[in-house]
Amino acid sequence: MFNPERFVPIAVEFIKEKVKELERDGAVLGISGGVDSAVVASLAKKALGKRVLGLILPERDSSPESVEHAKLVAETFGIKTETFNLSPLLETIGAYSLVPDVLHRKRKNAEKVIKISYSILPPFLKPFSRGLLGVKEKLLRGPTAYYRIKHRLRMVILYFYAEKLNYAVLGTTNRTEELTGFFVKYGDSATDIAPIACLYKTEVFELAKYLGVPSPILSKPPSPDLIPGITDELAMGMKYETIDKILTGFELGLSEKEIAKRENISLRKVKEVKKMMENSYHMRRHLPLSLQRKEVINA
Amino acid sequence: MFNPERFVPIAVEFIKEKVKELERDGAVLGISGGVDSAVVASLAKKALGKRVLGLILPERDSSPESVEHAKLVAETFGIKTETFNLSPLLETIGAYSLVPDVLHRKRKNAEKVIKISYSILPPFLKPFSRGLLGVKEKLLRGPTAYYRIKHRLRMVILYFYAEKLNYAVLGTTNRTEELTGFFVKYGDSATDIAPIACLYKTEVFELAKYLGVPSPILSKPPSPDLIPGITDELAMGMKYETIDKILTGFELGLSEKEIAKRENISLRKVKEVKKMMENSYHMRRHLPLSLQRKEVINA
Repeated sequence: MFNPERFVPIAVEFIKEKVKELERDGAVLGISGGVDSAVVASLAKKALGKRVLGLILPERDSSPESVEHAKLVAETFGIKTETFNLSPLLETIGAYSLVPDVLHRKRKNAEKVIKISYSILPPFLKPFSRGLLGVKEKLLRGPTAYYRIKHRLRMVILYFYAEKLNYAVLGTTNRTEELTGFFVKYGDSATDIAPIACLYKTEVFELAKYLGVPSPILSKPPSPDLIPGITDELAMGMKYETIDKILTGFELGLSEKEIAKRENISLRKVKEVKKMMENSYHMRRHLPLSLQRKEVINA
Repeated sequence: MFNPERFVPIAVEFIKEKVKELERDGAVLGISGGVDSAVVASLAKKALGKRVLGLILPERDSSPESVEHAKLVAETFGIKTETFNLSPLLETIGAYSLVPDVLHRKRKNAEKVIKISYSILPPFLKPFSRGLLGVKEKLLRGPTAYYRIKHRLRMVILYFYAEKLNYAVLGTTNRTEELTGFFVKYGDSATDIAPIACLYKTEVFELAKYLGVPSPILSKPPSPDLIPGITDELAMGMKYETIDKILTGFELGLSEKEIAKRENISLRKVKEVKKMMENSYHMRRHLPLSLQRKEVINA
């Protein structure tokens, strides 16, 4: 069982120790307005005090409330921030020209149009696991390049600030994302120290409540905030609760059928999570320093 | 002993197989005008034929001959290219403002000034191994951020093109760079498939001759082409021949003293290479698919 009270001092010590081991004077992290970076911000503040810089990295298609929520996190935990807008870079590179322009005129319309387009995609195109290797459908390649570059550019900017200050880059990926490949290769996973990479998303939520992450952040649906309207659970096709139960089943060495039966989950979903794990193997060959799960979870 | 004739078909098969395994339709690689990317370009062409795109990614401070040599490589091996100039991105992010502007007015002057500045640095600041963890000297942090961001941006652009085409990204790092940390974390090492990561730099030169890499590329001193005037051997403080002998010694399980004696190399250099290997451990936690050395070298 995961115990937030027991986890916090371990994670705080881990951050302190790794920042020292890497001979850095502090740490930067991207604050997105979501729950993962809120948790890491709180842990970083406990570990490093004033030697933490939060970067807010919006772009044209970010949700308007993301910046608001990011600032709320920074205020709540007393972290200084800088904001760097990625839009001019994405414009120069030509990322925005890969998706229909009309979608971005009015945010609410964009979200609706994208949700509807997504819902009418033929079912065989939907499994998230499909896109972890190649993207076979020509029409989906431009949009793939369009969303993935955002997290990679964020990584570039985080390191740029980190190197100017001799700080380390803190990662905010969790275990659910890492195992399912729900991250951008060399993007959000490309950091120096990943304090919550040992925790499933459902455990990150428990930790967030324990740490006092503000309620607007706890109550909104998690989203990578890369494409208007596309939330984590929409993209992955199931709830985090379901995914984490399946991942835990595999961790216990159970078969697909045993997991489906034990958790009362359809075999199709169990198989899809298995595929996510398999197809993302090449993305896990680049991982920052992280706590081992066995160090923080008592059986 | 390394045998280029034996290596080529193994590497060609490896590229074919991994591109297929990742479900991609071809591969992109950055062609820098240097020997590593020339070799990978040749192997890629043999493996994938027309399904290879070479990207030439210059910026304000690149050597003027780099683009020329990159084009020469592409012509020699029959690879189509696109050129994307990184300067506007580096300008927008503020990278150029981290180094004195005057250096970049006239290329030849810049090279001289930087070489002289480098030569008068106090000796304790020179070891390359020092900068692999933190950068303690405040004055060196800006320049560090200035040069490292270039390789990271190149990675971003390579993936942008790769994703638009459903291509894999081929890496050009070699074993000497990987073991010594002579690369940018999440920059030039951040690729999908690294066909020559199992070869020492001196072996890459043998391979280059065998493959018919044009002589201007073989005869110039290797350089990361990130800071005018700074070559690989200047930065690392010794010749590749020396570094590769030391690395081979460690690979054979010899002690520092044994290596120094056997190869007639100063113990100081052996210890410095050991430090490079140790201090770069955190950078090797992100490695693309590569051949194992034992697959290609017969003892």
